[in-house]
Amino acid sequence: MVSAGRIIKLVLEYDGGAYAGWQRQKGIITIQEVIETALKTMLDEPITIHGSGRTDAGVHATGQVAHFVTGTTYEADVFQNALNALLPPDIVVKEASEAAAGFHARYSVQSKRYHYLIWNRFFRPALMRDRAWHVRVPLDLEAMADALKSIEGTHDFSAFQSSGSCAKSPIRTILQQSLSRDVNGMVCVTLTADGFLRHMVRNIVGTLVQVGRHSKTPSDFSDVLIGKNRSRAGPKAPPQGLYLVEVEYGQQSD
Amino acid sequence: MVSAGRIIKLVLEYDGGAYAGWQRQKGIITIQEVIETALKTMLDEPITIHGSGRTDAGVHATGQVAHFVTGTTYEADVFQNALNALLPPDIVVKEASEAAAGFHARYSVQSKRYHYLIWNRFFRPALMRDRAWHVRVPLDLEAMADALKSIEGTHDFSAFQSSGSCAKSPIRTILQQSLSRDVNGMVCVTLTADGFLRHMVRNIVGTLVQVGRHSKTPSDFSDVLIGKNRSRAGPKAPPQGLYLVEVEYGQQSD
Repeated sequence: MVSAGRIIKLVLEYDGGAYAGWQRQKGIITIQEVIETALKTMLDEPITIHGSGRTDAGVHATGQVAHFVTGTTYEADVFQNALNALLPPDIVVKEASEAAAGFHARYSVQSKRYHYLIWNRFFRPALMRDRAWHVRVPLDLEAMADALKSIEGTHDFSAFQSSGSCAKSPIRTILQQSLSRDVNGMVCVTLTADGFLRHMVRNIVGTLVQVGRHSKTPSDFSDVLIGKNRSRAGPKAPPQGLYLVEVEYGQQSD
Repeated sequence: MVSAGRIIKLVLEYDGGAYAGWQRQKGIITIQEVIETALKTMLDEPITIHGSGRTDAGVHATGQVAHFVTGTTYEADVFQNALNALLPPDIVVKEASEAAAGFHARYSVQSKRYHYLIWNRFFRPALMRDRAWHVRVPLDLEAMADALKSIEGTHDFSAFQSSGSCAKSPIRTILQQSLSRDVNGMVCVTLTADGFLRHMVRNIVGTLVQVGRHSKTPSDFSDVLIGKNRSRAGPKAPPQGLYLVEVEYGQQSD
């Protein structure tokens, strides 16, 4: 029955501040639920959407991907326009398209990219107050860049995985990493990988900030990774600095 | 009595979304009032602060400047730290310093710079929903840049002044103008002038967007300016895209 429907792929932007994360849960408002409710209003039938992965409470996205299957014949544009009229101001459909048979927003993922923003100035941010982590101490970006190099490639990321993960394997491949600071003192950590473990970006950034404030050396950071021991890593960075910016799929997605 | 005190200069960032603008008014919450209340709590005496100018309801700042006079002997840093602890999360003191005698946040202004952000994509912004004007039609930036050139220099800006202005003269000098679009489709109009009339940036941007969507030509835009007739200009752009980013003073300010 499901295979008879068309697969609609959505690219989503959202401000995670008001939500208990992506995944539908009883008694609290989640992004998945809000989108499913809008689809139910539009199509007058219950629809389940599948995200590329969960984002946690307070985490943002500028490029989350989700799909659903429908028997309706609306053009993809109609889904975008109707959903954007029905969804609250903090969630928007950036693109809607019909995906090829076999596409699955989660199982077809080739890579994901996250940004983590750190407001590295003495004073707290006003305009970006729910959009970045405020770290007051000037960070040593050279030391942080050195540390980040050690996670490139394929590793066991157990040290940066929070408990409660349901991943079968802690092995992931970091395809790309970078670090920058803009004229306003906003530091951006970018990580692209074939997949991420639970809280992996936030655990990496939390430890990286310890390096940036010289409470760990780049070599300590590398030792945390090699040691595969979560208790040696730094505290998890807060959610409001994290953005899922892009999910890439193979050629079958378009 | 006032001249006996020290002049403390503050550089402020704020999210104007929750406020009825800068200037203290009866019965509504303004940014000036919130800062004065925090100063009163800190110093246990009523203080009046003077801004470089008013910002309207919903307008933001990353570089508003204000000053006040105090007989207290606290270091400037103490004002910054105490105010940032007392102020709400959407207002922050970026810098506090003691200014030279004769400094006045409004009367000593040499120039001011504003940014106006336009989210120029088909879909509405989610993360920037209270931070930019959403213009759905793709804008012709070349035409807009042509139009902007005509306001460089010294002109009578009556055409771009809203009624209710208390300016003595409508003559202002645009010292610098620029226009850019970033990878996310955010268009930024930057204007620096020796001063701005009431709603001047928003009236200019509203008319400029008419040029960008081809309902006016760059030459029409120039004619509006020359004609000094507000009724020929475009509608005023909404407040949430406007940011006071910098106020410059002569050497006497530091």
